[in-house]
This record gives sequence, C-alpha cells and structure tokens, in this order.
Amino acid sequence: MANTILAGVYGASGYAGLELVEILAGHPAVEMGFATSNTYAGEAVAGTALRYRPSAEVSPNEVDVIFLALPHKASAAVAKLGIDAGVKVVDLSADLRLDSAEAYERAYHSPHPHPELLPVPYGLPESNRKNIKNADLVATPGCYPTTTLLGLYPLLRRGALAADAPVIVDAKSGVTGAGRKPSLTTHFAEVYSNLVPYKVGRSHRHISEMEQEARKLCADFGPLIFCPHLLPVARGLMSSIYVTLNARLTSHQAHELYCQNYADEPLVEVLPLGAQATLKQVVKTNSCVISVTPVLERQAHITSVTDNLRKGAASQAVQNMNLMFGIEETAGLV
Amino acid sequence: MANTILAGVYGASGYAGLELVEILAGHPAVEMGFATSNTYAGEAVAGTALRYRPSAEVSPNEVDVIFLALPHKASAAVAKLGIDAGVKVVDLSADLRLDSAEAYERAYHSPHPHPELLPVPYGLPESNRKNIKNADLVATPGCYPTTTLLGLYPLLRRGALAADAPVIVDAKSGVTGAGRKPSLTTHFAEVYSNLVPYKVGRSHRHISEMEQEARKLCADFGPLIFCPHLLPVARGLMSSIYVTLNARLTSHQAHELYCQNYADEPLVEVLPLGAQATLKQVVKTNSCVISVTPVLERQAHITSVTDNLRKGAASQAVQNMNLMFGIEETAGLV
Amino acid sequence: MANTILAGVYGASGYAGLELVEILAGHPAVEMGFATSNTYAGEAVAGTALRYRPSAEVSPNEVDVIFLALPHKASAAVAKLGIDAGVKVVDLSADLRLDSAEAYERAYHSPHPHPELLPVPYGLPESNRKNIKNADLVATPGCYPTTTLLGLYPLLRRGALAADAPVIVDAKSGVTGAGRKPSLTTHFAEVYSNLVPYKVGRSHRHISEMEQEARKLCADFGPLIFCPHLLPVARGLMSSIYVTLNARLTSHQAHELYCQNYADEPLVEVLPLGAQATLKQVVKTNSCVISVTPVLERQAHITSVTDNLRKGAASQAVQNMNLMFGIEETAGLV
Amino acid sequence: MANTILAGVYGASGYAGLELVEILAGHPAVEMGFATSNTYAGEAVAGTALRYRPSAEVSPNEVDVIFLALPHKASAAVAKLGIDAGVKVVDLSADLRLDSAEAYERAYHSPHPHPELLPVPYGLPESNRKNIKNADLVATPGCYPTTTLLGLYPLLRRGALAADAPVIVDAKSGVTGAGRKPSLTTHFAEVYSNLVPYKVGRSHRHISEMEQEARKLCADFGPLIFCPHLLPVARGLMSSIYVTLNARLTSHQAHELYCQNYADEPLVEVLPLGAQATLKQVVKTNSCVISVTPVLERQAHITSVTDNLRKGAASQAVQNMNLMFGIEETAGLV
Repeated sequence: MANTILAGVYGASGYAGLELVEILAGHPAVEMGFATSNTYAGEAVAGTALRYRPSAEVSPNEVDVIFLALPHKASAAVAKLGIDAGVKVVDLSADLRLDSAEAYERAYHSPHPHPELLPVPYGLPESNRKNIKNADLVATPGCYPTTTLLGLYPLLRRGALAADAPVIVDAKSGVTGAGRKPSLTTHFAEVYSNLVPYKVGRSHRHISEMEQEARKLCADFGPLIFCPHLLPVARGLMSSIYVTLNARLTSHQAHELYCQNYADEPLVEVLPLGAQATLKQVVKTNSCVISVTPVLERQAHITSVTDNLRKGAASQAVQNMNLMFGIEETAGLV
Repeated sequence: MANTILAGVYGASGYAGLELVEILAGHPAVEMGFATSNTYAGEAVAGTALRYRPSAEVSPNEVDVIFLALPHKASAAVAKLGIDAGVKVVDLSADLRLDSAEAYERAYHSPHPHPELLPVPYGLPESNRKNIKNADLVATPGCYPTTTLLGLYPLLRRGALAADAPVIVDAKSGVTGAGRKPSLTTHFAEVYSNLVPYKVGRSHRHISEMEQEARKLCADFGPLIFCPHLLPVARGLMSSIYVTLNARLTSHQAHELYCQNYADEPLVEVLPLGAQATLKQVVKTNSCVISVTPVLERQAHITSVTDNLRKGAASQAVQNMNLMFGIEETAGLV
Repeated sequence: MANTILAGVYGASGYAGLELVEILAGHPAVEMGFATSNTYAGEAVAGTALRYRPSAEVSPNEVDVIFLALPHKASAAVAKLGIDAGVKVVDLSADLRLDSAEAYERAYHSPHPHPELLPVPYGLPESNRKNIKNADLVATPGCYPTTTLLGLYPLLRRGALAADAPVIVDAKSGVTGAGRKPSLTTHFAEVYSNLVPYKVGRSHRHISEMEQEARKLCADFGPLIFCPHLLPVARGLMSSIYVTLNARLTSHQAHELYCQNYADEPLVEVLPLGAQATLKQVVKTNSCVISVTPVLERQAHITSVTDNLRKGAASQAVQNMNLMFGIEETAGLV
Repeated sequence: MANTILAGVYGASGYAGLELVEILAGHPAVEMGFATSNTYAGEAVAGTALRYRPSAEVSPNEVDVIFLALPHKASAAVAKLGIDAGVKVVDLSADLRLDSAEAYERAYHSPHPHPELLPVPYGLPESNRKNIKNADLVATPGCYPTTTLLGLYPLLRRGALAADAPVIVDAKSGVTGAGRKPSLTTHFAEVYSNLVPYKVGRSHRHISEMEQEARKLCADFGPLIFCPHLLPVARGLMSSIYVTLNARLTSHQAHELYCQNYADEPLVEVLPLGAQATLKQVVKTNSCVISVTPVLERQAHITSVTDNLRKGAASQAVQNMNLMFGIEETAGLV
C-alpha cells in the first residue's frame, strides 16, 4: 500500500503503549515500524512481528510518525528529536499540554525542558479538531482531562456555568491508569476490595490543564475541585461532575444541549435521559459515554466515562494521528 | 449470668442480619434467643446453637430485645408487636426514621403503617446519645445516612456551612448494601469490573432523612445533592463530601474542629491532616473513619467511610442496644 | 450481498446469546434476522437495529440458520422446529450432544425429548470438522467439554494415555458460565473473594459427553475425574489436566506432539515449553491456548484455557455455522 | 501480669508479619516487645504503641520469644542469634523445615546456612504437637504444606494411600501469599480477572518438605504432583487433592475417617458429607476446613482450605508459641 503510514511507538511496554500497539496493529493504514522498551528489549511485541528495541537504538526518521507513551519529562526531549527529524509526533505525556513554560513551571515546579516547542495543539479532537488537522506535533490529553472536559464542553460552549462557581469533579480510575511500574500502591492485595482517594482538593497536576482548556471557552470558569480515587478494577474511568448553571440554561435543558452538541461526534455518546453511564459501557471501546441528569433548577449532574487506556490515551492518540495525516478520523477505531 | 440480655433477630439471614448474629454471639452480655428467616427456616444459624425459625412462629416476648433487620414496611408492624409486648426494639429499617407520618408519606409515597409510634429516637449515638439511652424503641440509621451525617456533624454543630448552599455527596457502596436477595443488579457478572451510579440527583429515599437530621442542627442546611454508586466490592461505604463554609470557619480550621468534636468518640476516628480515609481502614471494623482536607478558603472536602454492615447497620444497632439497656456503649464492639 | 446468511438467535439475552449477537453483528457474511428474549421482549438488541422478540412470535423460516442459546430441554424442541422448517440449526445446549437416547437418559434422568434427531454431529471442529461441514444440525459443546477435550486430543489420537487410568481434570470457570439468571450462587457478595468447588467427583452432567467423545478415539480412556470450581472472575475457563501416559510416549515428548497436532489449527495455540496458559491470554478472544508440562516420565500436566463465552460457546457456534455453510471457517472470528 | 510473654516480631511489615502483630496484640498472655521493619523504620505499628525498628537495632534478649517472618536465608541467621541468646524462636521461613542440610541443599541448591540447628521440630501441631511442646525452636510450615498435609494426614496415619501412586494437588492461593514486595507478578492489573499456574509439576520448593513429612508416616507415599495457581483474591488458599486408596479403605469410608481423626482438633473442621470447603469459610479465621468426597471405589477427592496468612502462617506460629510456653494451645486464637 503506497500511502501506508509507518509508525514508531516509544514506551511500548507500558499499559498505554501496549494498547497503542494493539490498535495500530489493526489499523488499515498503518504499519508498525518499531516499538521501544528498555525493560523488555529483545522480546517479541505481541500482535506484531517486531521485537522491542531500546529507545536509544531507534531513530525517529525510521518512520513517518512517532507516538510517545513515555514518562513526564522524558517525553519532551524525544518530541524535539522527532520534530527536528521532520516526522510527525503524537505525544501522550503531559509535557506539552500547557500552553506556556510559565504555566508548566507553576504546575510541575521545574523549568520546561523544551519551551521552544510551546504552544502545541491540545489533542482533544472534539474541541480542537481544526488545529489538530495537519499539525506536526499534538499533545494528547490523558484520561482525567479527556473524560472531564468532554463532560463539560457543551456547557462551556453555551456559557451556561455560573461565573466563578466551583465545579466539583469526583473521579474514579481503574488501576492501569497508575502505570505498569510495580509499587505498593498498585499491589493487588492493597487495591483489592479497597477504594482510595488521592491528590484530594486541588493538588492533582492535571487541574491546571483542565482549567486552561475550560477557560479558553469561559474565562470565568471554576475553580475546579477535583478528587480522583483509585478503583479496584483494571480499566475504566468515571468523572462524576456537579455543576451550578447560570440563567442561560436550566438543568432540564442541559440534556438536550448535550445531545445536540455531540450529535455528529462519532466517539461520544450521550445516553437517553434517565439512563446512567457506567464503566462497562466503555471498557475496551474507543468512546466516551455521557449521562446528564437535572438535580435542581440550577444544579446538574453529569457522569462521563471512558476506557482510560483508549479514549483516555491510546485511541485518542490514534484519532489525532488520523487527523494529522488527513485520513478518516476514526480509521482503525470503529 | 443473672442480667444477660436475651435477644431475638428478625431477618437474620440477610447480610445485616447475619452480621448482627455474629456480633451478638460474641457479645459478653447477650444471649441469642431466636433468629428468624422464612427462607432458611430449620437450618442452623452459624456461630450459634440455634436454627432459623419462621417469623410467624416466634414471639417478641420470648426475649428482652428484638432487632428488626427486615424490609421496609414489614418492619414497623413487628416494632409495634414488640412495643405492645413490652420488649425493647432496635429497628434497622427506614420505617421509623422520619419524625412524622407526613414526612414519611412525602418520601415513600404511601401512608405510614404505624404513625402512632412516631417520632422515634434517631439511632445515631454520636449525635443523639442522650435520647437513645434507656429508650424502648430506636430507629437505627443505615449506611448512607450514618456515614454522611458523621462526616457533617462537626460543621453542623459549629454552624459553619454556608446557608442554603448545596452540599454534594458522591457516595460509593459495596454490594452487600443492596441486600442478599438475588437480582440482575447484584449478579456477579454485572457488577464485576463495573461502577454504576444510581438514584442520581435527589431521588434516593434516604435524602429526606439526612436533611431532617441535619436541619435539627442547622435550619438553613443544604439542599443535599446525593449520588450513590454501586462499587465492585462486597463491603464498605464511602461518602465523599464537598461543602462550602461560611465566615465562621476557614477550611484550614476544619480539620482541628473534627479532631476536637470526635476526640471522645470511641467509634469515630479522624485521620491526621493529609492522610485519606479508605475502605480498607474500616472493613470488618465497627468504626467510622474520617479525613478532612482544605481545598480553598471556603471549600472543604471530607471523606467518611464505614463498613456498611457494621457501623452502617449491625454494630450501630448493637451500640444502640447497649445504650438502651444502660450498659457500656461499646460492649461487644471493641 | 446476494449470499448473505440470515441468522436468528434464540435466547439472545443470556450471556452466550449476547456474545453470539456481538459476533454475528460483526460477521462479514451474516445479517441478523431476529433475536429472541422473553424477558427483554421489545427492548433494543445492542449492536443491531433489532428489538428482542418473544420466542413464540418468531419462526425459524424467517432466516437461514438458527442458533439455540436456550436452557437444556427447551432447546431440542426448537431444533426440531428448525429442522422441520428446513433451516440449519446450531444448538448450543447439551440436548443433542449425547449420541443416543439411552445415554441421555442415563445422564439426565429423563427421557430424551426428541430421540429422532440423534445422533447429531458433535460440534468441536478441531476433532470433527468433516462431519460438521455441510451438516444441517450441529450440537456445539460448551465450555468444560471444549476446553478439556482440546487439552486431551493429541494424546487421544496418539493412543498415549495409560489404559483405564483416571484422568484428573481440576477445572475453574468464570461466573458467566453459570448463566445470567440471578441466584444466590451468582450473587456478587457470595462469589467475590471466594472459590467454590461444585459437582465434585463424577457428578457433573457433562462428564458423560466428555467420556463419549474421548472413547471414540480411545476405548480404554478414563475414567474422567472432573471437579469444577466457580472462580471470582466474569469470564474465562481453565482445565488443569493431570494424565498418566503409557509406553508410547514419554512426558518429555508430549509438548512436541501437541505442537504438531495443532500446527494448522487457526483457533488453538500451544505455548512454548515452559510458558503457562493463563486466563488473560484468552479472555475476549476466540482461541484455546494450551500449555504442556512434563512432570515425571509417565506423568504430564496440561493447562487448557478458553473464554467460556467464546471458544466455549458463541464463537465455536459461529465456527460451526461457517463450516455448515461451506464458507471460510474463521470468518467473523479473526 | 507476672507471666506475660514478651514477644518480638522480625519482618513485621510484610503480610504475615502484619497478621502476627494483629494476633499477638490481641493475645491475652502476650505483650509486644518490638516489631522490626527496615522499610518502615520509625513508623507506627498499627494496633500497638510501638514503632518499627530496623532489625539491626533490636536484640533477641529484649524479649522472651522471637517470631521470624523473614525471607528465606535471612531467617536462619536470626534464629541462631535467638537460640544463642536463650530465647524461644518461632521461625516462619522455610530455612529450618527440612531435617538435614543435605535435603536443604537438594531443594534450594545452596549450602544450609546453619546446619548445626537441624533437625528442628516441624511446627504443624495437628501432627507434631508433642515435639513442639516446650521446644525452644520450631519451624512453622507455610500455607501450601499446612493446607495440603492437613488434607492428607488421616489417610497417611491409616496407611490408606496406594503405594507409590501419584498424589495430585491442584492448589490455588490468594495474592498475599506472594508477599508484599511489589513486582509485576502481583501488580493489580496483571492479577485481576486472571488465573495463573506457576511452578507446575514438581518444581515448587516446598514439595520436598511435604514429601518429607508425609513419608514419616508412609514410606511409600507419592510422588507428590503439585501445581499452585495465583488466584485473583487477596487471601485464602485451597488445596484440591486427588488420591488413590489401597485395599485398607474405600473412598466411602474416608469421610468418616477424617471426622474421627480431627474430632478433637480445635482448629480443623471436617464438613458434613456433601458440603464443600470454600475460601469464604476460612478467610480471617484460624481454622483449616476440609471436605472429603468419594469419587470411585479407590479414588477420593479432598478439598482443604485455610487463610494463608492465618493457619497458613501467623496463627499457626502463635499456636506453636502457645505450645512452646506450655499455655493453652488456642490462646489468642479463638
């Protein structure tokens, strides 16, 4: 196939990387060029004919596009390599999601490693499709920002959130969201039968990214009060969102607003009024499913769910790649 | 032992009933008189020398106290029988928790079966100890009200909640909270790996009871926005509470307030600032564990956890019985 | 598409039925004609444009092939209807798997409902492909027989099992294998954190079917000692098989024998020596994965795993349908 | 209390160590002297007033008895220290369970670190009570040997196993059995929904110990074919045992034999014929529960279950300590 896209995946033995390889291996327009893993170098890459290679032994210009499923800080440097080599780069880390080096430093308490790359198009196609199309570098948001922002966009676009009112997000994530590196936090016997809140209040690093994106549409958004929990399941993420509306919309009109907003989105589904979004509806799918429930005249409840490794990571990265190469947005995903 | 309390348990083969029997069987001042189960009549009652008897074949006056772990509506009639027989009654159902027949009818959409019994002391010892002591009939609250109210009492007592501001409670319960009767909702394959919100907004029946109790301390409390979720674990309940404070208290003072309020409570533990309450800390214990986190000057986050079958049901019922008989409040519980 | 196969699924709201519909909806040569469910009649059938219809309101001759994911005893009668109507029938129940009415009566303690249909080709393609091809009626084996027999076939064909020596099968099944009808046995709180043996010894009804098939190849096979366990997972089945070999083969030659036997089978994978088959390798796949380990000169251990709803039920039924219609055996399955 | 036993626990932050501390803290005749942990040194020891101390900073002669919940090889050296200091030693490791240095070297492929300590009384009270009583050093067996041997003892004592016939043990263990040190093997996302055989055949190190003990009663025992599996639960261990009997006993007599053998054992329960032992029956208890099922005239099936951290580790160690100090065997355990 003349116009096959040759793809390389960095960090291909982590959970997001494994999922990326699985999706790319089944993508009709993609051929896998390499998959890196320092830990598993030399071993077979499941579902492909490749073997893992150490990241230091591959070069971006072996391929047309590189996906970076790397830890924070490690990612920006490889993105720079890719851009300098003239290949497209889909970054899945948080390194390039904040628009300025100053915002990065405020959130991560260290200087940005490559400020010359900023700003980078934010890779949430449902809100930023036109800037992702044909871009060379895209910063794909992770599971919490994707699931939460998709649960808020219709209200943000309509300007329907009460000004400066706290937006409460009680989020729950499966354990693959914590990465594959063993730790006591992810030990089976610690997680099983348990439920653990963490980064309570406003201490989670991705709050700044969510507020940045929300405020592009609503300057008086928030503050965002965000509390994630580690859920004793392998996959799936739920953002339970509690909002206060302003005079532009009653909670009873919210459901219809969401239906209209997402009517043409192939990877977002709004459930009928009364039905509730659950993890099972999205696990091993590429979709975000949303339910909207009126609570009081000015109070609405939104439940937004994704598979944290799919729409919250790997499949969204592929959706971005499709847009960047000008092919069908859902190729390999439906 | 001359002053042993002879106890009968109605509904002893449900999950709360089983737990009650287990606790009573180990209680130093209690002897089990009977345990009813229509489903398992004739079978041995684990941990005792008894066999289950059908409820129609026992009589309250065989014992000194009856515990009612019965379905709603079935419970009030047996409570009446017990009171008429002159024995003490610890009700675990919701039948007698609302103070008036009118409130009951608003919440349950049918007339109260025994309005002459109302009002009944609300069986949350940490807030209502003096009215439970020596009472003949007590209405023990269930898992959601207990866990949520214990998470709010210090602020309610201090009058520190912003007037008429929504209080958000995102709650998560293990499956035993849904009862032992088989249904598709509790089928292993439906629950496993899933997370399911239900009774979203203000549709859960126990909201009226929580608001009733909160407003006894703060007339301008709430509204309460309460969303429970079915968690894929067997036991444990978490209420994640998001509150707005008024000028009387900053969020940074809240933790100290909780520590002081609960300093002498044997079955409530407030964690050090920074530690977070998790399900594991309470499963198979009789305690409520609470963490308090400042979020913004006027916004605080409280996580309150209990074992839904213990402090959220059976052990709280025993705590009430201890008070009703004037013995050590934590007998059989520590 | 001129030669599309129109398919009807009876019992389409059970776990095997749901899986069948999912597979058929994605099958390139199949169109769904109807899906029956008495419980969910009128509701939408996920992944299709259909609504469930009561089984009494559909007719086999609306379609080209009917799949019977029905309870034992209900199934044979519908198979008869289908055969009389001249359509092909893929039965997933145990009604037609034993070759004679006598054998059926011995195993099920009641007369066979339609002895005139017997014998029916046993629908395990890896052992009986030539008789399934172009058949009108096929009796698809379920999860335990499929997984166990695939774990034994190479030894049976080679005649390598010690004559009349017990073959031990310690099996473990996920809860979907017990069906979707709610019961205390499948209640989440009963299964979670538990492991439950059942039908210990030689009391499981499918033993007769496994011995029947094994003895077609080895008259002196067995007896089969089979103990299933209910595993606290939703999907997946493992048969742990302990065999004694005769002088024809040492345990060290067994692995190579399995590799050769299954070299051309698209849906059976033999792992390299030393690797062990696990549930994760097969969940949501259509394959059987097998590991073979020498233990002592004459003792070997075989682990055979399938997804009980796929190769152990729905996907094997589709594999049979493909053979019955003379199309590519793995159409819709790879 | 004049005769309180002062106890020190080495390795007190592992799962067995944590369980030991919990049991000892509730033991009426014991006071905790120290608890070591190099990882958590300085942190509070739950349920006690102690803080963890590094093992190098404690001395056996601070206490009357030391418990060694240490890794293999580390344990023998501390046992030596304890013996030299004249305190009693309860070892939970495998270091001292084989009777000779030669047997140790065959099983562990390295020289025994302290052959002068061998042989040590094997700490399974139900088979070796008289040698444990008043001993200074006892080697407590772990979860697999304890559960398996208790499932075999009545047959071994009766001499009822067919000579030299393989005894098949298909075992399943909860994840705490693999220890608390994080690894990919125990990562939640790897274990959840999975079932993994390991050390298949005769490669598990504890086989030599089980055969040693069995052969003390039956010289022609075995060989033992033992296959453990990692089960996706936190606690609990099941040994599924398949035996061939000789002419001394039919399988139908086996159940009665077990009932008689264990009639006076406080921590072993034989279920009525027909009931099956399950994990739930033993989790968080100190008992071994056994079911015995006749299969064929000469074939029987035994299911033996324990809580791997209790009767399979910590509570058995305490049972041994009670015997070693001449106090009530079940003190602190019932």
